[in-house]
Amino acid sequence: MFYHDGGKLQYEVKVTKPNPVFAKALQQAIGGIQGEIRVALQYLFQAWGGRGPAKYRDMLLHTGTEELAHIEMLATAVALNLEGAPLEMEQAAQDPIILATLGGMNIQHVITTCMAALPVDASGVPFNASHVYATGNLAHDMLANATAEASGRMLACQLYRMTDDPGMKDMLAFLIARDTMHQSQWMAAYEELGGPKAHPIPTNFPQEQEHQEVSYTFTLTGKDDSVPVPEGAWSSGESFDGRGQFKTEQAQPRGGVPKLGPASPKAAVQQEQSAPAP
Amino acid sequence: MFYHDGGKLQYEVKVTKPNPVFAKALQQAIGGIQGEIRVALQYLFQAWGGRGPAKYRDMLLHTGTEELAHIEMLATAVALNLEGAPLEMEQAAQDPIILATLGGMNIQHVITTCMAALPVDASGVPFNASHVYATGNLAHDMLANATAEASGRMLACQLYRMTDDPGMKDMLAFLIARDTMHQSQWMAAYEELGGPKAHPIPTNFPQEQEHQEVSYTFTLTGKDDSVPVPEGAWSSGESFDGRGQFKTEQAQPRGGVPKLGPASPKAAVQQEQSAPAP
Amino acid sequence: MFYHDGGKLQYEVKVTKPNPVFAKALQQAIGGIQGEIRVALQYLFQAWGGRGPAKYRDMLLHTGTEELAHIEMLATAVALNLEGAPLEMEQAAQDPIILATLGGMNIQHVITTCMAALPVDASGVPFNASHVYATGNLAHDMLANATAEASGRMLACQLYRMTDDPGMKDMLAFLIARDTMHQSQWMAAYEELGGPKAHPIPTNFPQEQEHQEVSYTFTLTGKDDSVPVPEGAWSSGESFDGRGQFKTEQAQPRGGVPKLGPASPKAAVQQEQSAPAP
Amino acid sequence: MFYHDGGKLQYEVKVTKPNPVFAKALQQAIGGIQGEIRVALQYLFQAWGGRGPAKYRDMLLHTGTEELAHIEMLATAVALNLEGAPLEMEQAAQDPIILATLGGMNIQHVITTCMAALPVDASGVPFNASHVYATGNLAHDMLANATAEASGRMLACQLYRMTDDPGMKDMLAFLIARDTMHQSQWMAAYEELGGPKAHPIPTNFPQEQEHQEVSYTFTLTGKDDSVPVPEGAWSSGESFDGRGQFKTEQAQPRGGVPKLGPASPKAAVQQEQSAPAP
Amino acid sequence: MFYHDGGKLQYEVKVTKPNPVFAKALQQAIGGIQGEIRVALQYLFQAWGGRGPAKYRDMLLHTGTEELAHIEMLATAVALNLEGAPLEMEQAAQDPIILATLGGMNIQHVITTCMAALPVDASGVPFNASHVYATGNLAHDMLANATAEASGRMLACQLYRMTDDPGMKDMLAFLIARDTMHQSQWMAAYEELGGPKAHPIPTNFPQEQEHQEVSYTFTLTGKDDSVPVPEGAWSSGESFDGRGQFKTEQAQPRGGVPKLGPASPKAAVQQEQSAPAP
Amino acid sequence: MFYHDGGKLQYEVKVTKPNPVFAKALQQAIGGIQGEIRVALQYLFQAWGGRGPAKYRDMLLHTGTEELAHIEMLATAVALNLEGAPLEMEQAAQDPIILATLGGMNIQHVITTCMAALPVDASGVPFNASHVYATGNLAHDMLANATAEASGRMLACQLYRMTDDPGMKDMLAFLIARDTMHQSQWMAAYEELGGPKAHPIPTNFPQEQEHQEVSYTFTLTGKDDSVPVPEGAWSSGESFDGRGQFKTEQAQPRGGVPKLGPASPKAAVQQEQSAPAP
Repeated sequence: MFYHDGGKLQYEVKVTKPNPVFAKALQQAIGGIQGEIRVALQYLFQAWGGRGPAKYRDMLLHTGTEELAHIEMLATAVALNLEGAPLEMEQAAQDPIILATLGGMNIQHVITTCMAALPVDASGVPFNASHVYATGNLAHDMLANATAEASGRMLACQLYRMTDDPGMKDMLAFLIARDTMHQSQWMAAYEELGGPKAHPIPTNFPQEQEHQEVSYTFTLTGKDDSVPVPEGAWSSGESFDGRGQFKTEQAQPRGGVPKLGPASPKAAVQQEQSAPAP
Repeated sequence: MFYHDGGKLQYEVKVTKPNPVFAKALQQAIGGIQGEIRVALQYLFQAWGGRGPAKYRDMLLHTGTEELAHIEMLATAVALNLEGAPLEMEQAAQDPIILATLGGMNIQHVITTCMAALPVDASGVPFNASHVYATGNLAHDMLANATAEASGRMLACQLYRMTDDPGMKDMLAFLIARDTMHQSQWMAAYEELGGPKAHPIPTNFPQEQEHQEVSYTFTLTGKDDSVPVPEGAWSSGESFDGRGQFKTEQAQPRGGVPKLGPASPKAAVQQEQSAPAP
Repeated sequence: MFYHDGGKLQYEVKVTKPNPVFAKALQQAIGGIQGEIRVALQYLFQAWGGRGPAKYRDMLLHTGTEELAHIEMLATAVALNLEGAPLEMEQAAQDPIILATLGGMNIQHVITTCMAALPVDASGVPFNASHVYATGNLAHDMLANATAEASGRMLACQLYRMTDDPGMKDMLAFLIARDTMHQSQWMAAYEELGGPKAHPIPTNFPQEQEHQEVSYTFTLTGKDDSVPVPEGAWSSGESFDGRGQFKTEQAQPRGGVPKLGPASPKAAVQQEQSAPAP
Repeated sequence: MFYHDGGKLQYEVKVTKPNPVFAKALQQAIGGIQGEIRVALQYLFQAWGGRGPAKYRDMLLHTGTEELAHIEMLATAVALNLEGAPLEMEQAAQDPIILATLGGMNIQHVITTCMAALPVDASGVPFNASHVYATGNLAHDMLANATAEASGRMLACQLYRMTDDPGMKDMLAFLIARDTMHQSQWMAAYEELGGPKAHPIPTNFPQEQEHQEVSYTFTLTGKDDSVPVPEGAWSSGESFDGRGQFKTEQAQPRGGVPKLGPASPKAAVQQEQSAPAP
Repeated sequence: MFYHDGGKLQYEVKVTKPNPVFAKALQQAIGGIQGEIRVALQYLFQAWGGRGPAKYRDMLLHTGTEELAHIEMLATAVALNLEGAPLEMEQAAQDPIILATLGGMNIQHVITTCMAALPVDASGVPFNASHVYATGNLAHDMLANATAEASGRMLACQLYRMTDDPGMKDMLAFLIARDTMHQSQWMAAYEELGGPKAHPIPTNFPQEQEHQEVSYTFTLTGKDDSVPVPEGAWSSGESFDGRGQFKTEQAQPRGGVPKLGPASPKAAVQQEQSAPAP
Repeated sequence: MFYHDGGKLQYEVKVTKPNPVFAKALQQAIGGIQGEIRVALQYLFQAWGGRGPAKYRDMLLHTGTEELAHIEMLATAVALNLEGAPLEMEQAAQDPIILATLGGMNIQHVITTCMAALPVDASGVPFNASHVYATGNLAHDMLANATAEASGRMLACQLYRMTDDPGMKDMLAFLIARDTMHQSQWMAAYEELGGPKAHPIPTNFPQEQEHQEVSYTFTLTGKDDSVPVPEGAWSSGESFDGRGQFKTEQAQPRGGVPKLGPASPKAAVQQEQSAPAP
C-alpha cells in the first residue's frame, strides 16, 4: 500500500529560463527506456513477484517507491519548462528562433496536454511496459537494475550538460547522485548474492546437462582468418565464474541444412509447394 | 559485411514429436524481450556505433553474428514442431486433446505463415526494436549484454524442462552452453574495463558536481519506522565502487508542492483554469 | 513524494484454488486498457500537470496513490494463482485438463517471470502509456476518469462471475466497491465543475467562432431515406448543454473533390505523375 | 455496407499559405489518440457489436460514418499544407527559416508519402487500435464517446489558434461545431439512458455483493494528517448516483504482507530461492 | 464523404454452431496485418493523397469503401460466434472441452467487449496503422495492394478450411471471391501503368546516376563457393524490366572498416572512450 | 549460420559535411517500414520457413544476408553524420541555425546513444517486427519483396535528392542500384513462378468453391450513379489471371441488418441490455 506527501517534492524543482525544447529532451527521463516510469514499475513488479528472501523484496519496495517521486519531479520540470511556449504560426513565420523552438519542441505538449508532461520519450513514443524486466531471479534482476540505473545516469549527465539553467542543473545533480546510489546498491546486492559465484545465471540448472564443450568457448564468426581475433579477458584464462577456461574457436556448422516437410495440401500456398493430398 | 553458410545450422535441430504448443513457447526465444533477435541486433548496433577500442567492436561483431545463427536454429525448431498441427474445428470439437492443442498453439503459425516461425514472442507480440540497448558506454553495454544473456539462459533452461523431446533437449543444451559463454564473456569484459572501478557509470562526469550527500544513501520510503529496514551490502560499509560509505536515511521532502502557472488564456481548458487574457 | 507500507496490502488477497487460466484473465485488470496501471498513471499525470484549483490536484494525488495499491493486490493475486502451474509437455500430453490449462494460461508467467505478474493485458500485450489520458482540462479529465472506472468496474464484475474461488470473489468485491466510489467521485467532481454547463468542452473557445449552423445538428449519413433515422434525446429538443436545439439533417457535401497539385518533379513517383521540371 | 460520394468533401478545405509544420500538427487530428480514425472506428465497432436497443446502434452508424468524412477532410488539409515543402539540405543550410521548417515538419511526409497524410499522430507515432473503446455497455460507451469528442474539440480549438490561414480556420470552425454536436449527442444519450441512475456502471451487478462499507468512501492516501484533505462534492453529501453518502477515510491496510510460495525447484532462479526438490 | 446502408450487410452472415475459438481466428481477418482494417485504410489513404490521374483515385475510393463493409461482416461473424461462450471456471474445471474452449478463445471477447469483435489480430495484438502502405507512387501502391490481397486471400482460404459451419463457409467463399477480384484489379492496374516498364520503381530517378555496375547483379553472400548458387530468372538473361542483363557476383567488400571519431569529451561514456577535452 | 568480414563495408561510406538532421532522415532507411532491418529479417524468415523448392530458399538467404550489410552501411552513415552535433542550449539560444539543427535532429542520437544509429525510423519510432511479411506462399512473398524494394528505392532516391554531400550521394547511388537489382530479381522470380498464372494467390484453393459471380466484378460503392465510374484494365476485358472477364456492378446489400442476441444476463452491461436470466 502507498501514501503520498501532498505533492511535496523529494527535491526542489526550479526553472529560471523555461525552454520547451529542453522539455522535450527531459521527456526521455520520464518515458524513455532508461526513464523513471520504467524503473519505478520494474522495481515494484520485482518486489510484488519476489519469492526470495524478504529483505530483497523490501529493498525493492523502498527504491521503487522513491522512483515514483522522481517521475513527479521530472513531470514538474517539464511543466515549468513549457511556460510561455510559442504556439502561433503567424508569429513563428517571421522569427527563426521562434520557428525553430516550435519545430524543436514536442508539439503535443501544447495541443494534447495544455503545457504538461506526457508519459512518452524524447521522440514522443509512449512508454511501453515490455521494458519492465522482472524475472524472479534475483541475480539477474540486480544486474538488470544496475544496467537501468547506469543508462539513467548517462542520460541525466547528458541533460546536465545540455542545459545552462541553474535550477535544472541543481535538480539533475540531485538525480545523478541518486542514480549513483541506486547503481551502487544493485551491484552491492548482486555481490552479496554471490557475484561471480551467482554465474552462470540461473544457478539451478546442472551444468553437466549443457554442452560443456562450448560453455567457455568464444566463437569466431569472421569469414576466415583474415578477420581479427579480439583478445581479452574473454578469450583465454579462467572464466568469469571460475568454472572453466576461456578459449576461442572458429565457427563451423555442427548441423546441416534443415529439411522442412512440404506444405500441407491444405495450406494456402502455390500448388507446386504442397505435398500431394493423402 | 556478412556471409552465410548455405543454410547449414550451427548445431543440429531435430524434432521427434512435433508439438505446436511447444512451438508457441519457443517463439519467446526468437522474438521475446530476452530472445535472439534482440541480442543479435543489440550486439551489432553496439558494434556499428562503437567509438571505443576496436577489440570490443570486434568482439561484438563476432557474437552478434553468432546470434543470427541462433535465430536460424530456433526458427527451424519452430517449423519442425508445427508439422502436423491440427487445424480443423470439426475434428477438434470432439477430441479435447486436439482442441486443447489448437487452443494452446499460436494459431497464426498456420493461418499467417503456413507452419513457420514468426518474429514474435510467446504471446504473439511482435519484436519491438526499442529493446536494442546500445548506449555507446562500454561498461553499461557489457552489463546490459550480460543481463540479456542471463534472462536468455533462464528462458532456455525453462524450455529445456518443459520438453521431453530428445532433439529439443539437445538443441537447448547447446544453446544454454552458448548462453553460459556469452554471459561469462560480457562479465569478463566488464571486469576488464574496470569492474567496480568503472562505477558509477558513466565515469566521465565529475562526482563533485553531483549532490554527494545523497550519493551513497539508501532512502527508506516506508511510511514510518514500523516498516522494516532492509539491511545488506547496500545499507552500510564501503560502497560497491569504493568511493563512499553506504548509509540509510528516512525519506523526506527536500522540495515543496510545485506551483505551476495558470493555463494560458489560449489553452483549451475550462474558463476557470485560465489566466486572465493579458 | 511517495511512501509505502512495507508491502501490507490495502485488502487481503487469498487464493484457495490456484488457477493459472484465471491468472491470465486477471492480467487485464493490471495491464489492460481498463486496468490499474492505466488509472494510477492517469490520475498522477493529471495531478502533476494540474494548473487548476489545488483541490482537484489533491484529489487526484489521493486516488492515484490508492490505485498503486490495487496494482499491488492484483499482482499478488496473479502470483498466488500461479502456484502449481503445469509446465511439462510430457505430463500434459496425456491429460486434456492439464493440456488445456497449459494452453489457456499465459505461458510467459512461467518462462519469463517464474510465476509472477507481468505489466501486460489478458492477451499478453504490454501496457502502452498512450492510454494515460491527461489533457489539463478538468471537465474532460473527470469524464475520462469516470469512463475508465466504469470500464474497470465492468471488468471486475466479469472476473467476479468467472471465478468461484472465495478469496478471489472477496478481493474483487472490495475492488468493485472502490470502483463504485471512484466512478462516483469523478462524476461528482464533473458536476461540481458545472456538469452540462461545462459543455461543450472546452468552454473557453467562443462559440460564435464555430460554424453554429451545424453545432446541434445530428447528421444522417444513411445512403438515402430508406435508412432509419434514430430518434432520441439527441435529435430534437434542447441540447445537453442548454445552448441550442437539436435537429437532424441528411448528410450532403459542402465541399467538392479536392485538387492536389501534381507530385514534385523531384518526388519518387512514376514519371507520369510528376509535374514537368521547372 | 458503405458508400462514398466520389471524393466530395463534407466541407470545403482550402489552404492559402501551405505550412508543413502545421501539417505535422494536423496529423494529431487524424492519427492521435483524440483523432478521427479513433472515433470513426470506435463508433463503428460499438455499432457492430451493439446488443442493446437498435436506435443506439443506428445512431452510432450515422456518426461513425460521418467521422470517415472528417479523416478525409484532414488528410486533404495535410496534403495541401505540404505543397512546396522544403527538401534540400543545401538550401536549408543557409536559411534558418527553411532549416527550421525542415526540422519542424514530419520528414516522412516527403520521404515516405510524396506529400500526403499518414495515419500517425503529431509525433509520427502510428495510430494504435487499442484506443477503440467499445465495451458493449451503452452508458459506458456514451461517456467514452463524449470524452473522446471533448478531447477532439480541445485539439481542434488549439489548432484553430495556432494557424492564421483563413481556409484552415474555416475548416476547423466547421469541425469544432461538429465536435460540439457529437459531444452533446453522446451526453444526451447518456442522460436518456439514465444519467446518474445508470451508475455505478454496470448496473446489473447487485451492489449488495460489493463491499459496501467502502463504496462511497473517499480514501485519503496522504502519509499522515499533515496532507491536505481535498473537500468537494465527492467527500460528503449524497453520492452522484443517489445510492449512498460520501465520506472520507484515512487509508490503512486491511491486508498483511503477502506470502508467496518459494520458487519451484524447476524454476530458473538462483538456488537459494528455490524450494527443495520434492 | 461517406454513407452507410442502415447496417445492411454486403453479404449475409450466418452462424449455425457458434465457436468462440473460431471467433479468435476470425479476428486475424479484421485486425491482422493482412486484415480488412488495413486494406480499408490503405486504399483510402492512397486515394486521399493521390496526385496522379483521377481514375486511380476513384478506383481506390470504391474499393476502400467496399472494404469497410468487409470489416462489418467479419465483426458480425465474430459476435455471432461468441454467443454462448463459456465463462465460468467452476464449470470449466471439470470438462476438458469447456476448459479448452475457454483457454483457446480470446478471453477479452467476454471480459472487455461483452461478446463483440475487437480491432485486434488472432493473437489479441491491436491493429497498428503503420501497416497502411501508401507512398504516392502508383506502381508501388498497386503492387502493395495486390500483395495485401494475396495475403488476405490466403488467410480467408485457411479460415474456410478450418471451419465446418455452413454459414461461415458461405461468407468466406464470398470474401475469397472478392479477394480474387481485388487482387486481380490491382495487378491489372499495375499492368496498365506499365508493368515491367514501370520498373525499377520509381521511374523518375535517372538510372545513370545509380551505380549501374551492380544494378542487375545478384550478389552471392555464401561464405565461399561451397555454398550453392541459386539459379533462375534472376541470375542470367534479360532483367525483368528489360534494361539490363542479370549476372551473379560473389560478395566482397568495396569499403573498409569504418573509423568513427572518439566520443565527445562531454558524452556520457567511460573515460577511456572519450577524446581529450579540447 | 553466418559470418562477418571484420567490419569491412560492402561499399565505402564517407561523410564530408556531417549533418545531424540528415542523420535523422537516414534512420528511415534503417528502422522504417521500408528500411533494411525489415527486408533483412523478411528475407531470412522467408528462407527459414521455406517449404518450397530449395533454390528460392537459397536466393532468399543470399539477399537477406546482403541486407545485413546495408544496415551496417547506414548505421555507419548515421554515426558519421552525427560528429559535431550541437548539444548545448546556451549556444543554441542565440544562433537560429544551431537551434534549428538541434530541434530538427533526433535528440536521442546524443542523449541515448552517444552519437550512433538507433533501430528506429525518421520519427524515432522503433522498428516493429510485425512488418516482416513471410507467408510461406512463394508468389505472395516475391510480390511482397518487390514491393518492399520499390518503397526502399523510393526512399533512397528521395534521400539522394535531399543531400548535397558527395559521399552520401555516392553511397546512396550504390544502394539505389542494389534496390534496382533486388526489385528486379523478386519480380523475375515471381514471373518464373507463373506470373499471372500464379493468380489468384493462393492457387491451391479450388475456384469453384468461391462465389464466382463476384470473382471478377469491380464493385462500385459510389452513393449513386452521379459518382464517376473509374474505367481501366480492371473494369472490362480479360482478367489479369486470364480466368475471367472483368465487369462492374453497383454495390448493393446481399445481406440484411444483423441480429445479435441480447447480452448475457451475466454480462457487465446496463440492465436494459440484458436477456432475462434463464
